[in-house]
Amino acid sequence: MNADAERNIETLLSAITSGQMRAGTKLISRIERGEEGLVPILRALYRMGGHARIVGVTGPPGAGKSTLINKLVGYWRGNGLRVAVLAVDPSSPFTGGAVLGDRLRMSDHHGDAGVFIRSMASRGQLGGLAKAAGDAITVLDAMRWDVILVETVGVGQNETDIMRHATVVVLLQTPMGGDDIQAAKAGITEIGDIFVVNKSDHPEAGRTAILLEEMIALGQRLHADRTWRPPVVKTRALDGEGVPDLAHHIDRCFEAFAANSASARARLREQTRHRISEILQNQLDKRLRSDENQWLDALIDPVIARDSDPYAVADELLKRITS
Amino acid sequence: MNADAERNIETLLSAITSGQMRAGTKLISRIERGEEGLVPILRALYRMGGHARIVGVTGPPGAGKSTLINKLVGYWRGNGLRVAVLAVDPSSPFTGGAVLGDRLRMSDHHGDAGVFIRSMASRGQLGGLAKAAGDAITVLDAMRWDVILVETVGVGQNETDIMRHATVVVLLQTPMGGDDIQAAKAGITEIGDIFVVNKSDHPEAGRTAILLEEMIALGQRLHADRTWRPPVVKTRALDGEGVPDLAHHIDRCFEAFAANSASARARLREQTRHRISEILQNQLDKRLRSDENQWLDALIDPVIARDSDPYAVADELLKRITS
Repeated sequence: MNADAERNIETLLSAITSGQMRAGTKLISRIERGEEGLVPILRALYRMGGHARIVGVTGPPGAGKSTLINKLVGYWRGNGLRVAVLAVDPSSPFTGGAVLGDRLRMSDHHGDAGVFIRSMASRGQLGGLAKAAGDAITVLDAMRWDVILVETVGVGQNETDIMRHATVVVLLQTPMGGDDIQAAKAGITEIGDIFVVNKSDHPEAGRTAILLEEMIALGQRLHADRTWRPPVVKTRALDGEGVPDLAHHIDRCFEAFAANSASARARLREQTRHRISEILQNQLDKRLRSDENQWLDALIDPVIARDSDPYAVADELLKRITS
Repeated sequence: MNADAERNIETLLSAITSGQMRAGTKLISRIERGEEGLVPILRALYRMGGHARIVGVTGPPGAGKSTLINKLVGYWRGNGLRVAVLAVDPSSPFTGGAVLGDRLRMSDHHGDAGVFIRSMASRGQLGGLAKAAGDAITVLDAMRWDVILVETVGVGQNETDIMRHATVVVLLQTPMGGDDIQAAKAGITEIGDIFVVNKSDHPEAGRTAILLEEMIALGQRLHADRTWRPPVVKTRALDGEGVPDLAHHIDRCFEAFAANSASARARLREQTRHRISEILQNQLDKRLRSDENQWLDALIDPVIARDSDPYAVADELLKRITS
């Protein structure tokens, strides 16, 4: 790296670590665009991080996530915490733009220097939104926000990958009939640390909470090693009812994870492994698709001729990493 | 591999390659569940494949994909072709089950030995649906269906990854206003080889087709090397109007790709690279998450202490592959 590039990095680093919002916004935009050459700055920022509490919030469209987040941010601000919100929109080019409206709904905090709100979408780029979200979190963490709240809408694999960056995951449900919640069963207890039934005045709210409790009980039996039992919290985001209770459970969850140091360490390792794997997969995909791969073409041509197969080539490449 | 395992593989191989539906269904279920140990059979099946025409169909929910596919399958059956449909549902555990209804709507072909319909969902398993869809296509290809039609609903990254397994991709749009199509612009011309405006009797249909034509013209200018210009086809799936025309354009597209042998070879290489990358990423993720990774923990502990960072570790691992 030449002296100019080094000076640029130093300037950017000091702008970010002193919490300058404009610098943060611009850097996250560069990440969103998939700009090359950000690794040196991200590496430096990562090494300065590790302080923020990272909270994930996810749930189906229409569950009231943004309204609830708005209230939660207000509650934390009342306690003097500085909060960043990263709204990640994994929706497709077909349906894109959902988060933009949500961002507007958070305008309660417009002009508050203790709140940073940023949305991120896939912008038609093929792949890597979860990885980009991880990079954005690295930036926010180095900016020294007390809480980083990562929001995503529940549309499958994407939200699961994005939620893996959070330490504590809040999963919203709207009240719904028994059949729907049965269909929703698989998987959700793997993701959530805290369950929220929003719209608690809905006639089905009580029943939904009971069904969630049953699913949690089942999840606990399947994972006997878990020391944290996810609570079910009822909220009414529109008027903020239940929000202090939710904030309390989030605190409790961080404390419970921290109290058990062996399990906290295991979680941290798991999260770090995931992050490495995500970055590596992203880089690997770029490398394998680049046109300067004559060594790879020598492996691919027999696959095209069906004298070899993609599993064999993948296995060959994998061996190089792990041996 | 011992003699018993080899015999089991031989039996399964011969059941699949002779086109036994039950064997195909069962093997695809094992793939969907993420069962370990399927690589030897998939490797053998891959080497026997390469014959089917693989057509992808995607588009937003409610565009009429299943109805159109139903008619398209009917058309191909009328021409004596044997058709397999793989409906891949990337929706989350929160919203799951959309494809199941779609499958029922395809019951026109129930009991027809020349049609195979199978749906696949993520079933709460974390990751790998696109990779699993690739494995399922490997099975269907070895079963010697003339056409494999892969359907997925448009919800972002997932459908793009799934569509990469197809040689020709049909992208459905419903008639919509100008603003919506503007929002949808980014990315869709990268995915589709043929565009369909379904519900052609809708008042906005003509205008939607014109907007699509403009986007295609723009896409062609951006990619001067493209020899295929995606057509816009109008259909009315409910009564089958426009379906023969669509089938004709699909044929034309396969022929155009095959006619230009350098470009066909480049496409095949690109697709094979993608497949290898997908399998490798999947295996890599499993390997990095497994608990038998003391060598990896030695790299991770400094990351947790923030003396190192995940980008550095990913880079170190990547170098082992490509050097």
